Amino acid sequence: MNARDFPTWSDRLLTRVEQALVDWVPVDAPAGLGEAMRYAVLDGGKRLRPLLVLAAAEAVQGHAAAALRAACAVELIHAYSLVHDDMPCMDNDVLRRGKPTVHVRFGQAQALLAGDALQALAFELLTPEGDEVPASMQAALCGLLARAAGATGMAGGQAIDLDSVGRVLTEAQLQAMHRLKTGALLQAAVHMGAACATPALPAHTRAALDQYGAALGLAFQVVDDILDVTADSAQLGKTAGKDAAADKPTYVSLLGLTQAQALAAQLHTQAHQALDASGLTALAPLRWLADRVVKREN
Amino acid sequence: MNARDFPTWSDRLLTRVEQALVDWVPVDAPAGLGEAMRYAVLDGGKRLRPLLVLAAAEAVQGHAAAALRAACAVELIHAYSLVHDDMPCMDNDVLRRGKPTVHVRFGQAQALLAGDALQALAFELLTPEGDEVPASMQAALCGLLARAAGATGMAGGQAIDLDSVGRVLTEAQLQAMHRLKTGALLQAAVHMGAACATPALPAHTRAALDQYGAALGLAFQVVDDILDVTADSAQLGKTAGKDAAADKPTYVSLLGLTQAQALAAQLHTQAHQALDASGLTALAPLRWLADRVVKREN
Repeated sequence: MNARDFPTWSDRLLTRVEQALVDWVPVDAPAGLGEAMRYAVLDGGKRLRPLLVLAAAEAVQGHAAAALRAACAVELIHAYSLVHDDMPCMDNDVLRRGKPTVHVRFGQAQALLAGDALQALAFELLTPEGDEVPASMQAALCGLLARAAGATGMAGGQAIDLDSVGRVLTEAQLQAMHRLKTGALLQAAVHMGAACATPALPAHTRAALDQYGAALGLAFQVVDDILDVTADSAQLGKTAGKDAAADKPTYVSLLGLTQAQALAAQLHTQAHQALDASGLTALAPLRWLADRVVKREN
Repeated sequence: MNARDFPTWSDRLLTRVEQALVDWVPVDAPAGLGEAMRYAVLDGGKRLRPLLVLAAAEAVQGHAAAALRAACAVELIHAYSLVHDDMPCMDNDVLRRGKPTVHVRFGQAQALLAGDALQALAFELLTPEGDEVPASMQAALCGLLARAAGATGMAGGQAIDLDSVGRVLTEAQLQAMHRLKTGALLQAAVHMGAACATPALPAHTRAALDQYGAALGLAFQVVDDILDVTADSAQLGKTAGKDAAADKPTYVSLLGLTQAQALAAQLHTQAHQALDASGLTALAPLRWLADRVVKREN
C-alpha cells in the first residue's frame, strides 16, 4: 500500500478511478445520453476529489470498495456541476479541459439531462446491490454527498456566486460563498473517505480531518483565483481571465495578488497542522494533496 | 389507520406530506435559491407519487417515518424534473400548475440550480442523521430512487423523448420511452413504499407490486396523452395541446383516441389484478389510486 512519492501513489489510484468511471458511466443510456455523460466525465480533469477520498480512506484504513465508489461518486457530482455551470444561462463557457463544453458538443437539452443523470448516478454508485458495501456505510456516504451537493452546499454556493456578479463582497462574504461553492464538495471528499472507516473514528480525528478539508477547500479556490489572472487558457484548459471579465469578485480582486498568495500559503500550513493533530499515521497522500492544491499550475 | 374512502384517506396524508415539504424544503437556502425551490414544490401538484409511496407502505405496514421521507423525496425528484423540463432548452413552457414556471419567475440560472438542489435534497431526506430510519432502509431507498431518476430511468426517458420529436414511433418504442420517462418514478414510488416493510416482503408480493406499478405508470401516461387533446389549459393547469403542437408522438397520435381510451381501461384492470395476486390485504388506497390515475380530469 505504501508509495514513496505522489506520482507513484496517484498514478496507481488514478488508473483505478479512470477504469471504474469507464465501467460505471453507462455506454448504453438511451438516445445519446450515455455518450454525453461519458464525454462529461471521462478523459479529463485532475481527479482531485477522488484522490482526496482515497487518501482519506487510506489514512483511516477504510473499506476499499466503498472508497472507490465514493471517489467516483464525488467526481460525478463535480462533473455534473461543470456541465450545468458551463451552460449559456450560467457561465456560458465553450471550453472545458481543452475540449468544447458538453452543451456545445451535444446541445443544451442533452447537457441539462446529462448533468441531471450524472447526479443520480452518483447515488447509484453509492448504493450497490448485495453486500459489497455495508448498508450503514452506503447510507452515511449518500447523506454526506447529498448535503455537500445541495442547497446548503455546492448548489447554494453557486446561487450566491450568481447573485454576486458585479457586487463588491467582503472577504467574509467571499469566503462564505466559496466554502459552499467549491469547499463543501472538497470537504465532503475527505469526509467520505473517512466514513469508509470501521469502526467510526474518534471525535478528535474527525475534527482534524474536517479542518484539513476546510483549509484545503478554501486554498483550492484562492489558488483558482490566482491562476485565473496568472495562467493562460492553454495552461488551464479553460478560458482564463473569465472571472475578471465577468466582473466576479475573487480573492485577487479583493486582496490583490500578493495577499492572495500569502493567504494560500497560510491555508496550506493550516491543512498540514490539522493532519499533525489527527492522531493518524498514514498521512502522506493527504499531505501530498495539500501541496498539490497550492502548487498546481492549472 | 383505516379510512372508508379516498378523500378521507388522501386528505389526511396530503396534509402530512404538505407539512413535511414545508418543513424540509429550506426557507433559508442562500441567494434566493430556497425561494425558487419552495416555489417549485409547494402549493401545487396532485402529489400522486407521495400518495403511491404512502399507499404501498400502508399495504405492507411499513415504517411510517421512512415512508413519509420517501414520499417527499420522490416528489422532489418529480418537481425538479418539471423545473428542468419546462426550461427553454427543453419544452420551453411558461405555465405549470396554473402559475408561471420557475425559470419565468426566477430566471433560467436559478431554475437550473433549484432543480439541481431539489435532486440533492431528495437524497438528504432519505438519509436523516440518528436512528429515525434504519440505515439499511435508507440505503435501499436511496438506491431505488437513484436508479429511477437516472439514465436508466426518468432522465433516460427524457432523452428518448427529446430524440423522438418529429419521428414516428411504434407502440413498443413509445411504451419503452414512457416506461422510463414517467413510469420509472411512479413504479419507484410503489417500490419505495414497499421497501419500508420490515422484514422484507416475499418475492410474489414484490412481483405483484411491480406489476401494479408498471401498469399504473403506463396508464398514467396514456391518460396524460388523452387529456392533452380532450382537456383545456385551465383544467390542466398547464398548456393543453402542447404535445400535438410540438409534433411529439403520443398514444392518441399513434392509436387514435378510442383505442387509447381502451388501453387505459385495460391497464387499469391489470393494476387491480396485480393487487389481487399480491397476498396483501390493506389494499384500498392502492386501488383508489389506480382508479384515480385513470379517471382523473387533470
